Amino acid sequence: MANSRFAYVRSFELPDPLLPSTYIVCRIDGRSFHRFTEAHGFDKPNDERGLRLMDRAAEGVMREVPDVLLAFGESDEFSFLLKKDSTLYARRSSKILSTLLSIFTANYVFHWPAHFPHTPLQHPPSFDARIVLYPGEREVRDYFAWRQADTHINNLYNTVFWALVLQGGLDTTHAHAELRGTISSQKHELLHARFGINYNALPARYRKGSVLVRTKPVLSPSNPNGEVAVLHVDIIRDEFWEERPWLLR
Amino acid sequence: MANSRFAYVRSFELPDPLLPSTYIVCRIDGRSFHRFTEAHGFDKPNDERGLRLMDRAAEGVMREVPDVLLAFGESDEFSFLLKKDSTLYARRSSKILSTLLSIFTANYVFHWPAHFPHTPLQHPPSFDARIVLYPGEREVRDYFAWRQADTHINNLYNTVFWALVLQGGLDTTHAHAELRGTISSQKHELLHARFGINYNALPARYRKGSVLVRTKPVLSPSNPNGEVAVLHVDIIRDEFWEERPWLLR
Amino acid sequence: MANSRFAYVRSFELPDPLLPSTYIVCRIDGRSFHRFTEAHGFDKPNDERGLRLMDRAAEGVMREVPDVLLAFGESDEFSFLLKKDSTLYARRSSKILSTLLSIFTANYVFHWPAHFPHTPLQHPPSFDARIVLYPGEREVRDYFAWRQADTHINNLYNTVFWALVLQGGLDTTHAHAELRGTISSQKHELLHARFGINYNALPARYRKGSVLVRTKPVLSPSNPNGEVAVLHVDIIRDEFWEERPWLLR
Amino acid sequence: MANSRFAYVRSFELPDPLLPSTYIVCRIDGRSFHRFTEAHGFDKPNDERGLRLMDRAAEGVMREVPDVLLAFGESDEFSFLLKKDSTLYARRSSKILSTLLSIFTANYVFHWPAHFPHTPLQHPPSFDARIVLYPGEREVRDYFAWRQADTHINNLYNTVFWALVLQGGLDTTHAHAELRGTISSQKHELLHARFGINYNALPARYRKGSVLVRTKPVLSPSNPNGEVAVLHVDIIRDEFWEERPWLLR
Repeated sequence: MANSRFAYVRSFELPDPLLPSTYIVCRIDGRSFHRFTEAHGFDKPNDERGLRLMDRAAEGVMREVPDVLLAFGESDEFSFLLKKDSTLYARRSSKILSTLLSIFTANYVFHWPAHFPHTPLQHPPSFDARIVLYPGEREVRDYFAWRQADTHINNLYNTVFWALVLQGGLDTTHAHAELRGTISSQKHELLHARFGINYNALPARYRKGSVLVRTKPVLSPSNPNGEVAVLHVDIIRDEFWEERPWLLR
Repeated sequence: MANSRFAYVRSFELPDPLLPSTYIVCRIDGRSFHRFTEAHGFDKPNDERGLRLMDRAAEGVMREVPDVLLAFGESDEFSFLLKKDSTLYARRSSKILSTLLSIFTANYVFHWPAHFPHTPLQHPPSFDARIVLYPGEREVRDYFAWRQADTHINNLYNTVFWALVLQGGLDTTHAHAELRGTISSQKHELLHARFGINYNALPARYRKGSVLVRTKPVLSPSNPNGEVAVLHVDIIRDEFWEERPWLLR
Repeated sequence: MANSRFAYVRSFELPDPLLPSTYIVCRIDGRSFHRFTEAHGFDKPNDERGLRLMDRAAEGVMREVPDVLLAFGESDEFSFLLKKDSTLYARRSSKILSTLLSIFTANYVFHWPAHFPHTPLQHPPSFDARIVLYPGEREVRDYFAWRQADTHINNLYNTVFWALVLQGGLDTTHAHAELRGTISSQKHELLHARFGINYNALPARYRKGSVLVRTKPVLSPSNPNGEVAVLHVDIIRDEFWEERPWLLR
Repeated sequence: MANSRFAYVRSFELPDPLLPSTYIVCRIDGRSFHRFTEAHGFDKPNDERGLRLMDRAAEGVMREVPDVLLAFGESDEFSFLLKKDSTLYARRSSKILSTLLSIFTANYVFHWPAHFPHTPLQHPPSFDARIVLYPGEREVRDYFAWRQADTHINNLYNTVFWALVLQGGLDTTHAHAELRGTISSQKHELLHARFGINYNALPARYRKGSVLVRTKPVLSPSNPNGEVAVLHVDIIRDEFWEERPWLLR
């Protein structure tokens, strides 16, 4: 067969298994999303439609890949946690990475019209992805804490920044200058004093990011993988994890 | 800062650079495309709309990533060749893989309506991807020869098979049985004798697959990366490569 | 400088860091040791001199590399455990592997004359090595249990086998045949009934292998890395590990 | 069997195959050789006994591993080239690395007494090793050119430096100071004018390093792997390679 004389090229495909019994985290990030959100008129500092679309794309991943137990998203990024003893695709790194990323991307574009009914998509958005392994529970929890702390810091900054620009009439250069060196409490105070905004009363989605979590799998044929809940809660403290011991086994 | 106590988790992100001066091939494959094409009523054995959409998605990749010099597609797969000395993303494997795959996926969904105006997308399609390295020109050419030989073998088989089913009235079991053990010339003969089909007169797109090739880069600011041409030509023999020496440098 | 035009070849040296916070095990195995032990008249089934020499080589490794906390040896193999949070050589895999292996090999040849004073070394022995990562305590303990269980199984078999050959006068084919299908208790019984050997009274070195363990590091400038003790004790049960919590932290 | 309950730990041993059809270079370097050569009274700037011992150790590798076609050594390092299409140990990186390194180390210690008959070895020397892949002939040649250019630069410097110290009576600080900023021709001149040394008349072993090359394999059962020749010749220019086309195939 004509094919067989070329088939040796398959021998160049090298194995890429991930270490067993280790937590697999896959983080997906928007590519050139600054330009993308500008082009599509996203609200500042947060666009509820855009965030809900990200959640919807992540939910698509979790529905299709039962081994994903948890996802955390903020802004244009989403992180997925696979169960520690997952044997999905024999733990082949490229296969896992590409499957999650492609499902996410496809869902984002597919569900765009439902989330932006009045804003046609002008060009296809894209994402990149990486896989990181964590050997222990502590590191996994700290990974997600790292992302949620990032959400807090960025969102507080952006909230004040855009208040200064949109309500305070500053240009962006002066808004950044005004914020330089301020600490968290000063930003809260500035928001409240100048704009009457109580930061802690803003939507939890903005302040906490999105937590998609698989509810406890019930041993039933009809629903073996549990449900996926979308939450906006603290995942830095113990409570979230203690209530869901199946996430870290 | 709250963030810094968790930032150590970044140290678990390990480098994954690809060997320098080596040809990078990224192959993208449809996931569960049998089900997907069934659900969307693709024509058998080839759906021109679907193939053109694949080409369009690949073109999206090549427009956005200048280091991709060549792409070859058939059925639900596409392979991309990056130039040997590419330093795209410092040759980080995950970054290259995920970027190409996400652009491809997003383009596929984005351009669906233009290619299937009467068939709404029912669920988001997805793809997986892998990267393979080839150290020499011979191996790169044999890789693409391997894929195009595969196109030929599959398409000939599928063409006869679906003629037997759609025109000959056989069920799929009997159609497979009829073809078992036949060689290429017998399939040509069967097509011609029973169905009056001259295989070599069928569209080159079906018989050769799709070759997207970057035309010779012209040294001009307006078009530094050349154009992308979509061809359906032989890439097994020398001619194609000899006419485009810049592909393998 | 003449050198600089070639220095680009260094860019082909790719990083190979091991996942942080993960137990590093390095196992060293004799190459062609059947031939080597034949050539040097090793005693059967165990050669005390040869085993002590292996222990001495392993001790050389532990003296020179403080991050190695534990080693287990049997026959012509030795496994080394590095502490979980070791940053030795920035956890570069090849560097760690090659350092441990080379020290081991050099010590084996260097200390040969002291262990085999009447048997000149006829040709240089060699070893190969691999690194395996374990994410958790359970897996590390099971790794060492796996090796010690192997010691037990092999040694019991070999002890009976060589009793049959050396004392019983069987040739090796018949000795193997006699043992085929026997379980552990039958081997004990055979040893006792036919040869008056109480297996459990044989030297612990033969039955348990060699355990080299770093004693608890004392916080003193003169001895920051503790001492290395050579033991022949059970490491499958909890006791060994519970008494030395610093091994797994 | 007791063993089987632990055998799952083998699943943590991950594959590490090297890319096919690519040149494998393994470089071995002395560890702490400054201290080692001081302790054993090596001559400065070159110790002929020590260099011959390095050659002997490399020869031991080439005798035992037929796929090694070429080796180049200088000072306390040696680089080995495996043939491009080698399938040694299924191209497993750790296995190849560790085998070459262990044979080298063992030979070095084993052959010490024959090379240093009046200098007992005081402690075991050790080496580390790394593997680097090169996809093409150009890169392989440049790799070896890089090492030989390094030999030239280092040896010229060291030759003048030690002449200044041993014959000129300078201390090492002043000798370094005297050489700072000098170019090659100035060093030649200084050697000649002050010490009557014609650098180019010094032994080729010092100026060129050691080239161990497998002579053309003769198709005979008695000598299928050819002989190993020890040369001290230029390997930067084309001649060496053109005369031995089998090295790069």
